[in-house]
Amino acid sequence: MNESTDGASAVERLSQRELHEIDAFWRAANYLTIGQIYLMDNPLLREPLRLEHVKPRLLGHWGTSPGLSFIYAHLNRIIRARDANVIYVCGPGHGGPAMVANTYLEGTYSELYPDVSLDEAGMRKLFRQFSFPGGIPSHAAPDVPGSIHEGGELGYALSHAFGAAFDNPELIVACVVGDGEAETGPLAAAWHSNKFLNPVHDGAVLPILHLNGYKIANPTILARIPKDELRALFVGYGYEPLFVEGHDPSLMHERMAIVLDEAMDKIRAIQAAARDGTGPKGERPVWPMIILRSPKGWTGPKAVDGLKTEGFWRSHQVPLAGLAENPQHVKLLEDWLKSYRPEELFDEAGTPARFIRAAAPHGARRMSANPHANGGVLRKSLDLPRLHDHAIAVVGPGAVKAESTKAMGGFLRSVMALNEKARNFRIVGPDETASNRLQDVFEVTERAWMETILPEDVHLGRDGRVLEILSEHTCQGWLEGYLLTGRHGLFSCYEAFIHIVDSMFNQHAKWLDACSDIPWRRPVSSLNYLLSSHVWHQEHNGFSHQDPGFIDVALNKKADVVRVYLPPDANTLLCVTDHVLRTWNRINIIVAGKPRSWQWLSMDDAIVHCRAGIGIWDWASTGTAGEPDVVMACAGDVPTLETLAAVQILRELVPELAIRVVNVVDLMTLQPKEHHPHGLSDSEFDALFTTDRPVIFAYHGYPWTIHRLTYRRTNHGNIHVRGYNEEGTTTTPFDMTVLNGLDRYHLVHSVLDWVQKLKGVRVGLKQAMDGKLLEHRAYIRAHGQDMPEIRDWRWVERDGSTTHA
Amino acid sequence: MNESTDGASAVERLSQRELHEIDAFWRAANYLTIGQIYLMDNPLLREPLRLEHVKPRLLGHWGTSPGLSFIYAHLNRIIRARDANVIYVCGPGHGGPAMVANTYLEGTYSELYPDVSLDEAGMRKLFRQFSFPGGIPSHAAPDVPGSIHEGGELGYALSHAFGAAFDNPELIVACVVGDGEAETGPLAAAWHSNKFLNPVHDGAVLPILHLNGYKIANPTILARIPKDELRALFVGYGYEPLFVEGHDPSLMHERMAIVLDEAMDKIRAIQAAARDGTGPKGERPVWPMIILRSPKGWTGPKAVDGLKTEGFWRSHQVPLAGLAENPQHVKLLEDWLKSYRPEELFDEAGTPARFIRAAAPHGARRMSANPHANGGVLRKSLDLPRLHDHAIAVVGPGAVKAESTKAMGGFLRSVMALNEKARNFRIVGPDETASNRLQDVFEVTERAWMETILPEDVHLGRDGRVLEILSEHTCQGWLEGYLLTGRHGLFSCYEAFIHIVDSMFNQHAKWLDACSDIPWRRPVSSLNYLLSSHVWHQEHNGFSHQDPGFIDVALNKKADVVRVYLPPDANTLLCVTDHVLRTWNRINIIVAGKPRSWQWLSMDDAIVHCRAGIGIWDWASTGTAGEPDVVMACAGDVPTLETLAAVQILRELVPELAIRVVNVVDLMTLQPKEHHPHGLSDSEFDALFTTDRPVIFAYHGYPWTIHRLTYRRTNHGNIHVRGYNEEGTTTTPFDMTVLNGLDRYHLVHSVLDWVQKLKGVRVGLKQAMDGKLLEHRAYIRAHGQDMPEIRDWRWVERDGSTTHA
Repeated sequence: MNESTDGASAVERLSQRELHEIDAFWRAANYLTIGQIYLMDNPLLREPLRLEHVKPRLLGHWGTSPGLSFIYAHLNRIIRARDANVIYVCGPGHGGPAMVANTYLEGTYSELYPDVSLDEAGMRKLFRQFSFPGGIPSHAAPDVPGSIHEGGELGYALSHAFGAAFDNPELIVACVVGDGEAETGPLAAAWHSNKFLNPVHDGAVLPILHLNGYKIANPTILARIPKDELRALFVGYGYEPLFVEGHDPSLMHERMAIVLDEAMDKIRAIQAAARDGTGPKGERPVWPMIILRSPKGWTGPKAVDGLKTEGFWRSHQVPLAGLAENPQHVKLLEDWLKSYRPEELFDEAGTPARFIRAAAPHGARRMSANPHANGGVLRKSLDLPRLHDHAIAVVGPGAVKAESTKAMGGFLRSVMALNEKARNFRIVGPDETASNRLQDVFEVTERAWMETILPEDVHLGRDGRVLEILSEHTCQGWLEGYLLTGRHGLFSCYEAFIHIVDSMFNQHAKWLDACSDIPWRRPVSSLNYLLSSHVWHQEHNGFSHQDPGFIDVALNKKADVVRVYLPPDANTLLCVTDHVLRTWNRINIIVAGKPRSWQWLSMDDAIVHCRAGIGIWDWASTGTAGEPDVVMACAGDVPTLETLAAVQILRELVPELAIRVVNVVDLMTLQPKEHHPHGLSDSEFDALFTTDRPVIFAYHGYPWTIHRLTYRRTNHGNIHVRGYNEEGTTTTPFDMTVLNGLDRYHLVHSVLDWVQKLKGVRVGLKQAMDGKLLEHRAYIRAHGQDMPEIRDWRWVERDGSTTHA
Repeated sequence: MNESTDGASAVERLSQRELHEIDAFWRAANYLTIGQIYLMDNPLLREPLRLEHVKPRLLGHWGTSPGLSFIYAHLNRIIRARDANVIYVCGPGHGGPAMVANTYLEGTYSELYPDVSLDEAGMRKLFRQFSFPGGIPSHAAPDVPGSIHEGGELGYALSHAFGAAFDNPELIVACVVGDGEAETGPLAAAWHSNKFLNPVHDGAVLPILHLNGYKIANPTILARIPKDELRALFVGYGYEPLFVEGHDPSLMHERMAIVLDEAMDKIRAIQAAARDGTGPKGERPVWPMIILRSPKGWTGPKAVDGLKTEGFWRSHQVPLAGLAENPQHVKLLEDWLKSYRPEELFDEAGTPARFIRAAAPHGARRMSANPHANGGVLRKSLDLPRLHDHAIAVVGPGAVKAESTKAMGGFLRSVMALNEKARNFRIVGPDETASNRLQDVFEVTERAWMETILPEDVHLGRDGRVLEILSEHTCQGWLEGYLLTGRHGLFSCYEAFIHIVDSMFNQHAKWLDACSDIPWRRPVSSLNYLLSSHVWHQEHNGFSHQDPGFIDVALNKKADVVRVYLPPDANTLLCVTDHVLRTWNRINIIVAGKPRSWQWLSMDDAIVHCRAGIGIWDWASTGTAGEPDVVMACAGDVPTLETLAAVQILRELVPELAIRVVNVVDLMTLQPKEHHPHGLSDSEFDALFTTDRPVIFAYHGYPWTIHRLTYRRTNHGNIHVRGYNEEGTTTTPFDMTVLNGLDRYHLVHSVLDWVQKLKGVRVGLKQAMDGKLLEHRAYIRAHGQDMPEIRDWRWVERDGSTTHA
């Protein structure tokens, strides 16, 4: 395991000239990093540094930067030497100035931002723009060429890296994990991603754990535990750790070059053996990883004001601060900058010296120009099956029952099959693909699994395209990485537990929002969620599994980015699924249930309904001529069922009542047009919801969400919403709606409460409803299930007929 | 390391009688578990089992249950043998029926729920109530005696366990971690909690990793990796793993007893050495852990319908289903139940046999009756310092500047000092205590740290009461465990990144809500958040660090549980801090900034203001007589500053305008009284906000939050909110408010827009405001900082004076 596989040892291959070039590239990157953090002017120090050259607000993170650039420079060598296809995931994304510096040295930055040219004027702009109003942010944000990982919030570098590597057999994803980030849960879980990566058809991830020892004001755990524990931990995670430790640059360069060669040799050996069939069959390889231990703020000031700075947390952000108050710090800064010998690194024009530019790879091999890191460039649309081939045959409303998500599973099976050759579609989820009834996909693929497979295992395989790990964080990170490198996918999850990734969702939404201002970032496929086993179908798992609030988290993000769909049945779910798989740069949230339920719309009707996103269901309404007495609106499958059941009760009790049923598939239609591209105009909204009639709105989630979306509408004062009120336990499906007042009887109650013309019959009918509810609850408590009239309920047409399939 | 420390080997200590008792206890627990899942009647099988004895809906999780009960039975032996003080954290909380079964056998269940008596009638109730409408939920929910961990959502067992162990030197927290849960990020991170636990003054956590091999429909990672990797992983985490592997019950009993003795000996040896000073100084001990590998659904049906069931994922929930359709399954169920030989386990009356009851510990030593698991019983109020001792001296509004959270840090230092002896107060956070300016606490304590401490380290120590790990999940879990065992604490976090624990927040809120219906659960201290480095003070870190949406997640939970405070200055922050540390059974969210900012209220005024939660600031208002022309409301420190600056501009531009300034500290006052206990009545609300005047509301977070809270108020149609619109980057502090339209000039704009009497001057004044904005933005882009008039802005009293401290 310790030999290079091609016979030549790494140390022999590395000449002194190469070492010098790497070091010069590194020094140049460090110089440019410090320049970005500190300087507004005098970028090449061609005159003595004065306070007015220094930015008034010193922002940015020096501490991690020299390590990031050290790795960058060495990866460049490897790429050139082996014509390797490498991208760089920068976990410590707050080392943004280092990443920018490297991409500038590679020339990519100036190609994309011509005003930041490769000369003194460009360098001045480069320095000034960093963390400066109107300039660029401080992280490895979307504006940084080659970045697929902003790294503002820590924890997701490694799952992003694996997501990028899946189905990219030639790609090597170098992933720097900071020792701060390594303490987070999501990162700790993501090390196990190696159990899902197949060396035959996936690329490789080369994790580089960067131990610089400190966080903001604390040592890090992994940098302080005994080395034997550190080694054991990564052996336990299934890696072969290779160590690079020290602080002397020249020794470190040599060691890093050797170790990086060794790691690359091992990766290629694993891949070659797996791909030519000579390797061990069916065994997960032990991939190499690198543990780089180097000082925080390496090459920076050793001490400032008598306090240890290099190799300590005081280097975390800006090691020299308060320059206006401490004139001697200006001198220290100048000395520090000059310690990199800029005169050797940049020519008279301020352009990086030829030998430095030569140290970078060429064209698309530059990590900053690798098309995988601008996935939209590589993205190919999915081949999608014909919707009608998967339609549930619905001859009339309530004619048949079906499991909505099972129908979706059939559709996804076809998607999987049609794109088998392209290998650009994956489903991820925490062990819930089948539980959410998408199991038909297992007719054409399996769950990916690189550990032992036992004879009794079901749908488990080396080539599976479904990724299941009981870590929503890892699922989300994998999918983000997969999408950002130009592929497609779906995350299927229990609705309540998608809250686990709220913060990752926020970060991805912010990434997509920022991308919309960057012309060279080509659109990537949307991140699609299926949230099933939802709040109304978690009566068996109880209170802890009931939470529809992810929609609310999503609504806080930019309207351009977010869509929420609540298809009421299988055909609408299929339409929505077909739609979202065609979209880009969005986050689409689909909430749909899995139990066998009544179906309402034929595929043709579903297509019309979904295209509009909202509409009147004439067949369910009564008294069609003119304005209705009441609008009964519904969004979500269970609310739709209860609304229709309430309509049926009302038709019988008060036949003269004109009810309009409005069903909402696309929640964003409710918002004003000015707030969301899918929003209805006020006149469209009024045409559906009237300007003065009561609206009884049965909603899937928390009721105030509907108020938040509609508070500016004409008729808002008359909208009465019923939804989930945070009441739940382990009980029957119908009892769940009763507990929250969303059931048919409570809906009838609301109609009786708010329709003026029912004043005369109100009290009597409400008593009747209460009587029914009491009867139901007594039955439920006695029998442990819903009354047959609920279990067997079916829709009756206005003429009294029931449709049969 | 492999010897028992007291000389007697464990195997010698364990008699055959003891083994038999443990096995019987286990069989009884398994019988009661299956009974809960399946039976409505005929609990002791005294007549042949018929379909009508079986529940119509079969809910619950068998798979994990036998393992949980196996561990329970063995812990009981250890507790009795050593008079040990042990609680049981059940990670696989969906093994609820097993936990209930064990507490029933211990007698605790019947003591707390006398109708579930220790006889046949009680057993019938026990079985029927489980996962039954009107009964009990399916998890280790708050109604389960001895539970501090519901375990519906997976990932938090181990951090809860460590939280319980801190400052409880005699307590041993046995923590069962399922191999499913072990895949989650939060759990993976929490293993490192051992770096923060001091054997001198903390208790011990005994993690028991339960490898039963399968999740819902998949193998688990840790059960399938090679054993040497498994061992290395936990050695790497810093533990000594002890293995118990197999399936033959009698061999497994023996092995478990030996290993449990070994683990207990090691724990006691570590503690003794640390406490009597004979142990190695300043070294984190290597604590034991147990890896228990046993079949999923152990002792259940080997195969059902020809498919492998025991030792496979088909045992996960209900191994025998569809009993109505498969009459032979009824027989299988009966055989399965009888395989535990219930006739040996329960006497004629249906009471557990004497020798089984004797296998349980007595009184408060029963894990189900241990007071640590009902922390309110042990909770002692904090000793709190006098508020006035920490007050910022404010002779008048805008007279002095202060750092709000730094003042809070001083207060917390006193809290820490006053309760030093009680050792019942901790601060947790992800390396941000000092960054959030609470550093004064380090005058009286340190950051806990059990790894090497270097000479240059600052405020790092073995006895530190501040817990910092870069894992918000671990912080949250520790604090929850600490509070649920009767102590107090505070979680200080960057505002944006508290979203990382959204889902944990949801689960804790649900736990507290459920507790309110359980009389024997005594109140525990509130979970208090300080969210600092908030959205308006993240201009240096940029977009990824800007998110005020946690408030919205919180608002979705039950009103009784949640409070949100937005103190505008230091003295109000101190009042709020003092208040929240006195409360119980709540989650208090405090959002407050850290930069030096103007102070508005003296401590006396702050106390009055905070008691009301909301109020008119007369000193800032103009034209006090009668109804104002406009209400300018503000909630949050930055919105308050911008509102006051806008008032100042308006006073000059349109002196005749009557402005009422309303400041909101307690966000919940805005909700209707019927929705929240702190909500204002409609008449109170109208008295503040008028019924018809425009209200310009400057809010800390997303603007629609204010609409959501106020949509039913009389004057809602006139409320115009400015807040965070998801616009941000790395820029200046003032530019952040400009980007989102929350700055003083935009606020003036809004006043001009909505106050009818300003119609004549509107256009001209708006142009003037736009001119100012342009000037500001040009300056900011040129100089990289705000104009001096922003940096030096100060409040001018109505008479033109400025107060000096």
